[in-house]
Parts: sequence; C-alpha cells; structure tokens
Amino acid sequence: MEFEVIKPLLNDTGKGKIVLLILDGLGGLPMEEGGLTELEAAKTPNMDMLATKSMLGLHQGIRTSITPGSGPAHLSLFGYDPLKFKIGRGVLSALGIDFDLQKQDVASRGNFCTVDEEGRVTDRRAGRIPTEITERLCKKLSEEINIPGVEVFLRPVKDYRFLLVIRGEGLKSNIEETDPGIVGEKPLTAKAIDTDSEKAAEIVQEFIRQAEKVLKDENPANMLLLRGFAQLPDWPMFPDVFRLKSIAIAMYPMYRGVAKLVGMNCPPASHDYIEEFEMLEENWDKYNFFFLHIKKTDSYGEDGNFVKKVHEIEKVDALLPRILALDPSVLIITGDHSTPCAMKSHSWHPVPVLFHAKTCRPDGIASFGERACLKGGLGVRFPAYDLMSLALAHAGRLDKFGA
Amino acid sequence: MEFEVIKPLLNDTGKGKIVLLILDGLGGLPMEEGGLTELEAAKTPNMDMLATKSMLGLHQGIRTSITPGSGPAHLSLFGYDPLKFKIGRGVLSALGIDFDLQKQDVASRGNFCTVDEEGRVTDRRAGRIPTEITERLCKKLSEEINIPGVEVFLRPVKDYRFLLVIRGEGLKSNIEETDPGIVGEKPLTAKAIDTDSEKAAEIVQEFIRQAEKVLKDENPANMLLLRGFAQLPDWPMFPDVFRLKSIAIAMYPMYRGVAKLVGMNCPPASHDYIEEFEMLEENWDKYNFFFLHIKKTDSYGEDGNFVKKVHEIEKVDALLPRILALDPSVLIITGDHSTPCAMKSHSWHPVPVLFHAKTCRPDGIASFGERACLKGGLGVRFPAYDLMSLALAHAGRLDKFGA
Repeated sequence: MEFEVIKPLLNDTGKGKIVLLILDGLGGLPMEEGGLTELEAAKTPNMDMLATKSMLGLHQGIRTSITPGSGPAHLSLFGYDPLKFKIGRGVLSALGIDFDLQKQDVASRGNFCTVDEEGRVTDRRAGRIPTEITERLCKKLSEEINIPGVEVFLRPVKDYRFLLVIRGEGLKSNIEETDPGIVGEKPLTAKAIDTDSEKAAEIVQEFIRQAEKVLKDENPANMLLLRGFAQLPDWPMFPDVFRLKSIAIAMYPMYRGVAKLVGMNCPPASHDYIEEFEMLEENWDKYNFFFLHIKKTDSYGEDGNFVKKVHEIEKVDALLPRILALDPSVLIITGDHSTPCAMKSHSWHPVPVLFHAKTCRPDGIASFGERACLKGGLGVRFPAYDLMSLALAHAGRLDKFGA
Repeated sequence: MEFEVIKPLLNDTGKGKIVLLILDGLGGLPMEEGGLTELEAAKTPNMDMLATKSMLGLHQGIRTSITPGSGPAHLSLFGYDPLKFKIGRGVLSALGIDFDLQKQDVASRGNFCTVDEEGRVTDRRAGRIPTEITERLCKKLSEEINIPGVEVFLRPVKDYRFLLVIRGEGLKSNIEETDPGIVGEKPLTAKAIDTDSEKAAEIVQEFIRQAEKVLKDENPANMLLLRGFAQLPDWPMFPDVFRLKSIAIAMYPMYRGVAKLVGMNCPPASHDYIEEFEMLEENWDKYNFFFLHIKKTDSYGEDGNFVKKVHEIEKVDALLPRILALDPSVLIITGDHSTPCAMKSHSWHPVPVLFHAKTCRPDGIASFGERACLKGGLGVRFPAYDLMSLALAHAGRLDKFGA
C-alpha cells in the first residue's frame, strides 16, 4: 500500500502487537507428479489448527512471474514495494556480509576477472576462483592501494565476488559500471553519470589503475570489474511509516541488513532458531512489531533436500504455541519467496500465507498448504507489500478513509 | 476502470437496464468462533436462487486494509476510484446533512472547542457538547456574524461538529486548517495556500474574528476550529461517463449527496425501504441505471445488533422478486463496505457481491454469503470501482477494444 494512503489513517492508539514469522523459501512444489509440496507433506498440527481461525492465501513478493532475491523479498514483506524501493547491488552486497555501511559510502559489487596482454577480458569470473583466493586478493589490494582523502574497503563475498566500499566526503554513486558484459572487450571506464558523482568516479578510476598494477602478475584473477555502484537509500523508515516499535530477530546478515535498512532494531544475531524464539519472548514487552526469520527452510530448498525442509517446517510448527502464548493481535506465517526442493533455487511461485487475527473472517479451511491456500480469503496473488497495512488494520491501528 | 478506457468503447444502443442494490454495511463477521456471518445466517431464498445464475465475489471499496467511509465507498461503487476522486471533508459534511452546496461555495468542517484566557486550546471538542448546544451556537453565530459581500451558512452536524459554508464570487478553497491538532496551542490562521484562495482566506479570517467575540462568554464551547476547506469537485459526470440515465433512490442525505455529486437524478427522499421499491417500479421506464440504497443493515451493524441486521437482509430478500419482475439486464447486490456487528463499526473486510446478468458465466454456487463468495468468479478483492464497467459490458453497452 502506498505510504501516502496509510500515513494519514494511522491512529495513535498504540494498540496490538504484530508478529511476522518468515520461513525463508517456504513455498514449494511436489517432487513428482501427484505428490505433495514440502508444506503439504509436513505434519503441522498447530498451523492447521490456526488455519481454521485465519485467512489463507498466496502472496507475491514482487510481481507475477518474478523470482525474488532475498533483499527485495524481505523489503516487500516489510511493506516496501520493491519496484519502487530499489536497493542497489553494491548495497545488497554489503548487507549480505554484514558490512556496516555508512551514509555517503559508495559501495560496489566486484568480480575478479581475467584479461589478456592487451587488457581484453577473457573470463569475466576468472575461472570462478574459490572464496579463499578472493580473500587473499582483497587483503593484498587493501594493503597496497592508497588513495589520499578516502578509505577503501575490500571484502570477499563468495567465489570470485567481492565488495568494494569507498568512504569519504561528498561522494555520490551515480557511476557507470566497468563490466563490458562480454569477453573480448576491455573493461569500461567508471564514468560519472551526473556531476555530483564526478569526485567518486575519479576515485574509482584511480582505484582501478592501482588495482591493475597490484593484480597484473596474478593468475587467473589479474583484473577486476565493478558493477552496481550504490549508496544507502534515503527512504521513509519503517518505525515512522507504520508507527511501530520494531525488532528483527534473525541469524543471517542479509535479513538483519534489510531490516536495518528500513530502521528496525537489530539486536545481535541469534545462534539458532530456538534462541530466536527466546529473543521474541524476552523482547515481548518492549516492541509491537516482531520480524522473526527462520533460514534453514530455504537452505534445504536450495540443497534439494525435501525431507530436511519438511522437518524444518515441523520444528517451527512445534514451537508455534510459544508465539500463541504471547497472544499477538496479528500473526503472519509465510515465506519471503518459494524455494522448491524440486528446483534447488528460489522461484517465482506464489508463497503460502497464514494470516491470523481475532478480526479475521475465517475461510473455513483446516490446513496450511499451497492447495489449501488457493481457497483462502487473501486470494492467490496477494501483493506481499500489502501484508503490513492489512496487519495494521487488524491490529486496530488504521482509521476510516473519508466520512 | 479508467474512464478514458471505457468512453471510446461505449456504444449508443441504449440497451439494458442496470440495478445497483446496496445493502449498506452488508459484509460481516461471525460473532463467535465457528459461527456464521450476518449474511450467512440470514435466510435468503431469493438471493440463493439468484446466486446459482450469477457471479459471486468480494469487492474492495478503496484498497486492501482500508476501511471506507460512506462517501468514498459509494463513489467507488459508482465507478470513481476514491484515491483519484477525492471528496474534501467540507463537501462530505455538506452532503451528509443535505446542504445544497453550490459551485464556488467554500465548505468547511467545524468543531466547537474550548480555549483558555490566552486563547490556547484546552479541549478540541468542547467536552463533546451535544447536538442541541451546537444547534443553538450555529443559530447565534448565523444571526450575529456579518461579512459584507458574502453569505455565511452554519449548520449543526452532530455533537460538537458543524458545517460552515461561505458563498460569494471568486472564492477558492485552498486554505490551511485552523485546528492545531493538539491542546495547549492557539488555533492556527486560515492562510491561503495559493493566490486564488486569498480572498476566501481573508473572509474566513474575518469570520473567525467575529465568531471569537460571539462565543467568548459561552462555556465550554467558547471558540471554533475549521478543517477540510473544500468545494464541489469538477469531475466527469456519471450520465456522461457511462451514458446512462440514472436515478438514486435513497433515504439518507449522504447517499443522495454522493449520487448528486456525480450528476445522478435524485428525487425526494423515500420514507422507508418499501417506498424505495415502489419508486424503482414507478421510474422503471424513465431511466436505465437505478441506485437503490438500503440503510438499516449498516445501522444495525453499528449497533452490534446481529439479529436485526440479519432480519433486514431477509426483508430485502423477500422484496427481491419485485426487482426480478422488472427483468433488469444487470442486477448487482452488494454493500458499500462491511459493518460487522462484532465490530460495531465500518471495517476493511471485503464485501460480498452478487452480480446477475443473463450473460454471466455461473460459478455453480447456490448461496450468497461471505464464504460462498470466496469461490466466486469475481474473485476475493474485486475493485468496487470496476463493477460499473462490468455492468456496462453485461448490459451490452461496451464494444470491442481494437479490431
């Protein structure tokens, strides 16, 4: 929902607590014709019981047919339409490795690559070198590169990918990428797209000149390419937009990062999902919005491990009574996207949602699963970024539109 | 549907009559877990019979999670997206009490309030004085205030609220409100926001100066606050947009007011719902669009009186054969919003719709109720402002788009 529509309707009753329980990559597919999905196969007596008193449906994180990445998928669940609120790739890379990005920092996603004697790219990924080599190269570059007036940070991400951050005064990130996108071409120049970004572009160009010298005798990663120059966005913050004191309880950097990006409180990461439930209980009186993130459903989806994904869902179901004992006004159980074991990757399939509140008009459906959700009151392609305003309505926090 | 899309497709066959039967606040909720909603509990043999030959679904008046006020909710049913066609608060107040607002009139919603000796607001609602006191104060102000060149109208609305209308030449309503929004502050100045509104702003300021003197010895309502300065909107009119000769049959001012706002014919108000059905029959040959408004379903919803709301629905169901005997091309039975007895207020819950036409693709559902509508062909979040174009299509009034 557009923030301009919601904001004037928000009352100051401070009523009602909202829990957003995300089982990452929850949506699934049958492994064979006629089979059940992961959620359908899981024994979830608590979710099924709750379903009878809830609204079900399937949400879309971004739009029909679009497979969401983790960053935009969570942004959407937090009420931010990811087509309007775009996170630059450089910033996403920083969030994903828990790099503490500051305002004015210019972040970029980097690839180590291979070039020939004439400087033409022969492999854009340097033979997909392992993370350990990228680690060593980042360290070497950090030690040898020196650009007066700015700090330069290099951090390995995964395989041939790394994060570059430039910290200084008056930097803007509207800079063209240097990746030519094909082999046989030289890396492009990191040109400023507007005058405000000229200073940063010059620094990036100097960085590349120095990096070229540092890397020239390495093999195969003797050069680098930079993409997705970006800065922390200047967005309306979640606690202001929705008038909610919010806390993010998550183990992994990306999810904590997106939550921080919209201004949620992020206590230190939990170590396992049991500890996450404990943190929820301990913080119950201090907040009125709780984002609780369970990672492993997605990991097992990516592995294609159907049995373990099912088991993760069952473990969360078993802990559900602890949330219900807190008596939240609104409890949303869903995923950020689908990660069907059958595909071993994120997918575009809509994601099952269980939306529970005392003011729900029940669907009369007694189980939580993809096919059951087809019949639910939320419908089959509910925009994920509308879940927040619906939660506010059911929490009693939204006044009438017009008289 | 956007008017620009519809207008070029409208043919001039003049075919088909459309009836929009609104049971105000129709949508409901069960009173207890596992219970039925008002509409589900009501015995509606005629609607159930009609359902088998109709499309069902649930509409949203404004957007997901937004609780519609009566004005915007009806505007939406008339085909006007209420986020694009906004009715100012002052105009809404005028519609609600049947004040005959003219073009150029500047209307504002007023509160009587209490101020201390230094003029600081101590109670923005003057202890919620009853309507009778507001009536007396409006009369007193009307008699004593004199501003050369303009007419000033004051009308009680309800409790501490009143309507102020200023009538004169060359007035525009882009004026800042005087309500500081919190106690402890003085009322703000009614400043013009653009130069066109300067004349009206000066008149409002003069009105406030005089009102302050008239009210100063009253207790507790010794001052007033003004909000929502507005004028009649300059919108495309319903009969032009949809090429329909239209009539509004309603008992209450707000509904007649919104219908008038979009250019429908509004004969004098009926006295009860039986008379409304008589008016429908008497006017059948003269019009091809009939808006028939039943109020009491909403009133009993607001009262939380489940039994009486159910009974109102049943009374309308019993009269349905009189509409069917007229053989309309399209009959839409729905509400403007939900008013669940369980909540005693308007709510954001989608509203059941029964859409009947000979060209309907039937859903195969044999009852009219919230859960039955979940399975219907209109879906679970049909935009209310698309019902009109769907009615035009089923009436045979919309030509093909493209060759």
